[in-house]
Amino acid sequence: MKSFLAILLVCFWVSGTVCLFPQDESVLEDLRINQNRFQERLDHLAEFGKNEHGGIDRVAFSHEDKKSRKYIISLMKQAGLEVRIDAAANILGRKEGKNPELPPILFGSHSDTVPDGGKFDGALGVLGAIECIQVLKENQITTLHPLEVVVFTDEEGGLVGSRAMTGTLTPEALDVVSHSGKTVREGIQFLGGEVNNLDEAIRRRADIKAFLELHIEQGSVLHTQQVDIGVVEGIVGIYWWDVTVRGFSNHAGTTPMDMRKDALLAAAHLIIAVNDVVTTVPGSQVGTVGKIKAEPGAPNVIPGLVELSLELRDLSEEKVRSLFGRIKNRASEIVQNTGTEIKFIPLDANAEPAPTDLKIRHSIDETAKDLGLTSIFMPSGAGHDAQDMAKITPTGMIFVPSVGGISHSPKEFTKLQDCANGINVLLHSVLKIDRILDESGPSF
Amino acid sequence: MKSFLAILLVCFWVSGTVCLFPQDESVLEDLRINQNRFQERLDHLAEFGKNEHGGIDRVAFSHEDKKSRKYIISLMKQAGLEVRIDAAANILGRKEGKNPELPPILFGSHSDTVPDGGKFDGALGVLGAIECIQVLKENQITTLHPLEVVVFTDEEGGLVGSRAMTGTLTPEALDVVSHSGKTVREGIQFLGGEVNNLDEAIRRRADIKAFLELHIEQGSVLHTQQVDIGVVEGIVGIYWWDVTVRGFSNHAGTTPMDMRKDALLAAAHLIIAVNDVVTTVPGSQVGTVGKIKAEPGAPNVIPGLVELSLELRDLSEEKVRSLFGRIKNRASEIVQNTGTEIKFIPLDANAEPAPTDLKIRHSIDETAKDLGLTSIFMPSGAGHDAQDMAKITPTGMIFVPSVGGISHSPKEFTKLQDCANGINVLLHSVLKIDRILDESGPSF
Repeated sequence: MKSFLAILLVCFWVSGTVCLFPQDESVLEDLRINQNRFQERLDHLAEFGKNEHGGIDRVAFSHEDKKSRKYIISLMKQAGLEVRIDAAANILGRKEGKNPELPPILFGSHSDTVPDGGKFDGALGVLGAIECIQVLKENQITTLHPLEVVVFTDEEGGLVGSRAMTGTLTPEALDVVSHSGKTVREGIQFLGGEVNNLDEAIRRRADIKAFLELHIEQGSVLHTQQVDIGVVEGIVGIYWWDVTVRGFSNHAGTTPMDMRKDALLAAAHLIIAVNDVVTTVPGSQVGTVGKIKAEPGAPNVIPGLVELSLELRDLSEEKVRSLFGRIKNRASEIVQNTGTEIKFIPLDANAEPAPTDLKIRHSIDETAKDLGLTSIFMPSGAGHDAQDMAKITPTGMIFVPSVGGISHSPKEFTKLQDCANGINVLLHSVLKIDRILDESGPSF
Repeated sequence: MKSFLAILLVCFWVSGTVCLFPQDESVLEDLRINQNRFQERLDHLAEFGKNEHGGIDRVAFSHEDKKSRKYIISLMKQAGLEVRIDAAANILGRKEGKNPELPPILFGSHSDTVPDGGKFDGALGVLGAIECIQVLKENQITTLHPLEVVVFTDEEGGLVGSRAMTGTLTPEALDVVSHSGKTVREGIQFLGGEVNNLDEAIRRRADIKAFLELHIEQGSVLHTQQVDIGVVEGIVGIYWWDVTVRGFSNHAGTTPMDMRKDALLAAAHLIIAVNDVVTTVPGSQVGTVGKIKAEPGAPNVIPGLVELSLELRDLSEEKVRSLFGRIKNRASEIVQNTGTEIKFIPLDANAEPAPTDLKIRHSIDETAKDLGLTSIFMPSGAGHDAQDMAKITPTGMIFVPSVGGISHSPKEFTKLQDCANGINVLLHSVLKIDRILDESGPSF
């Protein structure tokens, strides 16, 4: 009863009129999505691009992508959304709010897949968003703010749709040849966008109230810890270096152990140093050496040159800088001990950390608890459209468990109950944000 | 004077007649090879296959190989050798000894090169052997035993000539396509061999008194330690394993550090373990990881599978077995600490250690000292025809310094003085062996 009074007060404060919610508190509290309908639609969407191993080949700008978008648009219309395609070919479905002066709350995800991908990545966030609108329609609920379901273009190829929306899509990115065989430029046109008017796709800070994205975790933290909901604290920054270790290539038979400058031995010490540095500091940072090449690469020749990759991820750029400093110190020791040279070349592919909005984060967490679900705060180690949206609007992300942490694979799986939990949290978070966020209120 | 008396005694003991050496001691002691003549011939031989970077492309069975052999045969004939080509296309040049019942002392090396090789590898041993014969001829010295200069076929492609001579050349080896583009079978015919009568190339234990090979070290031990002569204790055994490290491939962003099974991290620990095990035991054993491959091999994916090579070399098979046992123990610890699996698959490419003959070794060492040269005992980490010959006859090897240890490269270089030292040691070792070795004497 207390929260209902609070809603009334907030509504009054926001609009200066009477509350815009005709429904009583119990209707709102009891609102749940339709699991079976969601399941049917998820299965239907998975037919677009399904391959013989049960994987999904629905890469952005493919014919399967185009067909699936038609299906998605039909569902949006069925839910009463007014659908438009923006210049970047993002699909936007709008449900008007009670107050025409307020900016919309956006939520959604993407519908493209990686080659041989799974049926949940992206699809959950898109179909979940539409399900929320469908439930609101069935219960004749109108929010204060307009709601917009967004289906971003070509997420897997480099967050194309959200970059366009935030004005950060570079001309070079348009020339990239996507998995479909088309350039991004051609692909956007193919899906009904207007690549020469991309500026029209840009949304400004004042244009959007907030952005929410529901997604599978793609890691195994929630599944392993048996937690229902992950409240994403942010999308981690990703920092890449090319590392070269230069020793001296020599005959493995005729060069005594104490006369070697073995680049691979030095690289092995460096790989262990990366692990040591990253794991001996508290926090959720990760560090990975995923790629390695030793030259000349014969069993009977001491490697003279090793090239390897270094990746560090964390929510704090400062922490990454500190970790990298410690790795460089360890590299200096290795250089002295092995008579090699080690060079780190930073790559442009870096992505800055994108923290989610503190209030939205707590709204999601409260919502999960209100629904009787367990939740934890966690970073998103993978990239998402939300990381672009966080630059222009208060953003939140909801994670649900991925069985075994498997993703980008035909084996990707999330239980129906977990999908439904996530969609219910999305629905009630949208409603909560609609009620408690106000531009004249405390800033995010 | 003492040694001359010893020679007289030995000669008497061997032949039951008067000494077969007409020369007095001082003539023998003062015998030295002709450095300038050797240098000219080395330079001339290096013209066959010389490429634009100054490297030598004289791979076995090439036209350049064939042409260079004609030149070598002409030098052999000039030195008074009776030349024949055996069924494996080995060139054999014979100088009769005083005692027709004694088996010959063989010495020589090979004249083929690796692609873009150097001018000393093989060539020194061949031209050095011919130079010895030339000097003996000039000084009208006839040894007790017949002498045979041997130029082995296709050493670099897998010790083809010496394998044929020791009866260990397999039919499969004949089908190998060599660097020349010809199969070994075709190549042997091309050089004048009789591949269908390979048995005729086989020499038995009783057929040969001893075998000596002079060669550049191809390592940097002599050069670094500024020693003139390396007395080879044997050609090391070479043992190869393919090692697979199996972890679990996963998303580098979404998989926390404590939930990883990183195959590359485990491989790094293994590379360090190999180095630790090999370097913490006294001796000249070497251990090398020269090849590594991580899958899937992307900067943002934790490697799930690493394949690497392991090579161990030592003169003692037992020591290699013990080192490998310790490496396996360390691997078991790594497996436990990293949650990975490590498998070692032994490869057939292994070569058994080939110790040189103890008496010949000491004869070479004494000869070096008699000539005022410094010497050390050392293993040969590289393979040589001598390792095959050691199976059928008492064998010795003489090393001279390689500047910087560089070999199989246009930068391969040995100073003329070092070449001459080696040839003088070869000459006097042959003479010493001719005098002191006898079948009825103590066995090798």
